[in-house]
Amino acid sequence: MVEAAVMGAGAWGSALAKVLADAGNNVTLWARRPELADEINATHRNSGYLDVELPAAIRATSDPAEALDGACTVLLGVPAQTLRDNLSHWTKWIGADATLVSLAKGIELDTLMRMSQVIVQVTGADPGRVAVVSGPNLASEIAEEQPAATVVACSDSGRAVTLQRALSTHYLRPYTNSDVIGAEIGGACKNVIALACGMAAGAGLGENTAAAIITRGLAEIMRLGIALGAKPATLAGLAGIGDLVATCMSPHSRNRSFGVRLGGGGTMQAALDATGGHVAEGVTSCVSVLALASSYDVEMPLTEAVHRVCHKGLSVDEAVALLLGRSTKPE
Amino acid sequence: MVEAAVMGAGAWGSALAKVLADAGNNVTLWARRPELADEINATHRNSGYLDVELPAAIRATSDPAEALDGACTVLLGVPAQTLRDNLSHWTKWIGADATLVSLAKGIELDTLMRMSQVIVQVTGADPGRVAVVSGPNLASEIAEEQPAATVVACSDSGRAVTLQRALSTHYLRPYTNSDVIGAEIGGACKNVIALACGMAAGAGLGENTAAAIITRGLAEIMRLGIALGAKPATLAGLAGIGDLVATCMSPHSRNRSFGVRLGGGGTMQAALDATGGHVAEGVTSCVSVLALASSYDVEMPLTEAVHRVCHKGLSVDEAVALLLGRSTKPE
Repeated sequence: MVEAAVMGAGAWGSALAKVLADAGNNVTLWARRPELADEINATHRNSGYLDVELPAAIRATSDPAEALDGACTVLLGVPAQTLRDNLSHWTKWIGADATLVSLAKGIELDTLMRMSQVIVQVTGADPGRVAVVSGPNLASEIAEEQPAATVVACSDSGRAVTLQRALSTHYLRPYTNSDVIGAEIGGACKNVIALACGMAAGAGLGENTAAAIITRGLAEIMRLGIALGAKPATLAGLAGIGDLVATCMSPHSRNRSFGVRLGGGGTMQAALDATGGHVAEGVTSCVSVLALASSYDVEMPLTEAVHRVCHKGLSVDEAVALLLGRSTKPE
Repeated sequence: MVEAAVMGAGAWGSALAKVLADAGNNVTLWARRPELADEINATHRNSGYLDVELPAAIRATSDPAEALDGACTVLLGVPAQTLRDNLSHWTKWIGADATLVSLAKGIELDTLMRMSQVIVQVTGADPGRVAVVSGPNLASEIAEEQPAATVVACSDSGRAVTLQRALSTHYLRPYTNSDVIGAEIGGACKNVIALACGMAAGAGLGENTAAAIITRGLAEIMRLGIALGAKPATLAGLAGIGDLVATCMSPHSRNRSFGVRLGGGGTMQAALDATGGHVAEGVTSCVSVLALASSYDVEMPLTEAVHRVCHKGLSVDEAVALLLGRSTKPE
């Protein structure tokens, strides 16, 4: 049993708070908005994000100091681009030996840093204290207790096993992995490939094309990961291909749906209008992923094609022709 | 340009005959039934298998000697369990230096041999003359010229490149690979995992479960492949994860559909009745894959679970509980 703080009461933070409570841990859930903390404490629901009853044992608060007090395991569930600012506020309340668990998937735009690097830089924590949870984990399905598997990555194997136990329930099966970089790169890159899958589906292309995009997408994610020091096996696992498959195939994926609109001949503006102005995550992350790849001299033709469609006015048909027209080569 | 014989006028053989003709090669297509060869020659259609017009340049025949005469590239498109018998008849007409291309996906039931091993044993060909074409390639979509990618595997790199060129069209992009074993194992194992995916979907489970099954399925296919001498990168590529994703996700996959019936609470008999008595390929191949794995002391828990559901009366619910109940471990 651990004392856990989950910082961020979005869908994923709330679902993992439920997992931690179901596994018998003490859980405090921090919500930015006091009225959300009140709702969770009063009704055991987070109706804006999840359609299930949360365990009564979860205590919610909007006071970060209260949430972090005594927590030996801190799950960071705020969006990637806000993590640095939030952590700067929180660092003074984080226990000196607490395990810091990154839940956000992304690359910081200005610095091109992975989330674990941001955590180390802002908190001054030893890298062995930083863990990543990543895998094919749609929050709504975890909350509904549908069977799922995930990866707990930490270079300190003791902390990895502690976290694995803290997240083991009859519906979630965590696997440990020492490869933090691999676990992060899969999550950071997948939304771009999901956009490409959506574009192909929107253009009327079928299963062969989707499978080829997923596989060649994995190949370019692997190239980037290996250049950064990740292990290929991690990217062939749950946090790599697993998360990629779930994101590319799910009809609920916002990135896939956004791509479908573009592939059907819609403009960026029309796709934005249809989503109420919400830019799909892959539209922004293709910029940071491509910049990171280019700084390591790694070729990512699918990510580049998505970037050109989203930001340089290339049509989806032109992008497909471009990708197929590349000279044939070994796999 | 090559002289090619495609032996077998099913959906996949006919689609690849079209690819070869579209790429400018001379193609003879052998059909077992003379009336089918006549239909193809007269109407340029193979209406029982594909809904497209075939190139007029394809010459069909039901005479294997005529098909094989002068062919330097022989594509073997008959079902896995009939390959040995067919090849025994054909060997005398096959050119001494012809490249023999396996299109069948499976493990021979009695011998537990891969198709390339059967080819070498029956024809006495040097292993360098045997190639495998495998990837996420639904025949109907290739025939409709939807963009797809595939793997051409051959230990002789010159033959691999010749075959790659012979199969390159504006809609098909072949990648060469020297790893014949890897290319074969992916195709032989995928239908079993597609059955498992179907069972989970039929039991009402969602995208997380499907992605976990695909990923853990890939992990056990990799274990078997590596034990047999395959390269992990091949199984992380088009002939491994690519083919697996396409087969597990396609609503047209017979294996997935058969699994959906079982997962929905149907019995084997009910599933068989619903498919007009056609056993899905994975129902038989789980037997040979499991036997092969066991002879190499490789654990394949998903394949074993499918085997127990299909042949030992285990319920799908029991199989899921069994898989989640395994002790937690490193990825």
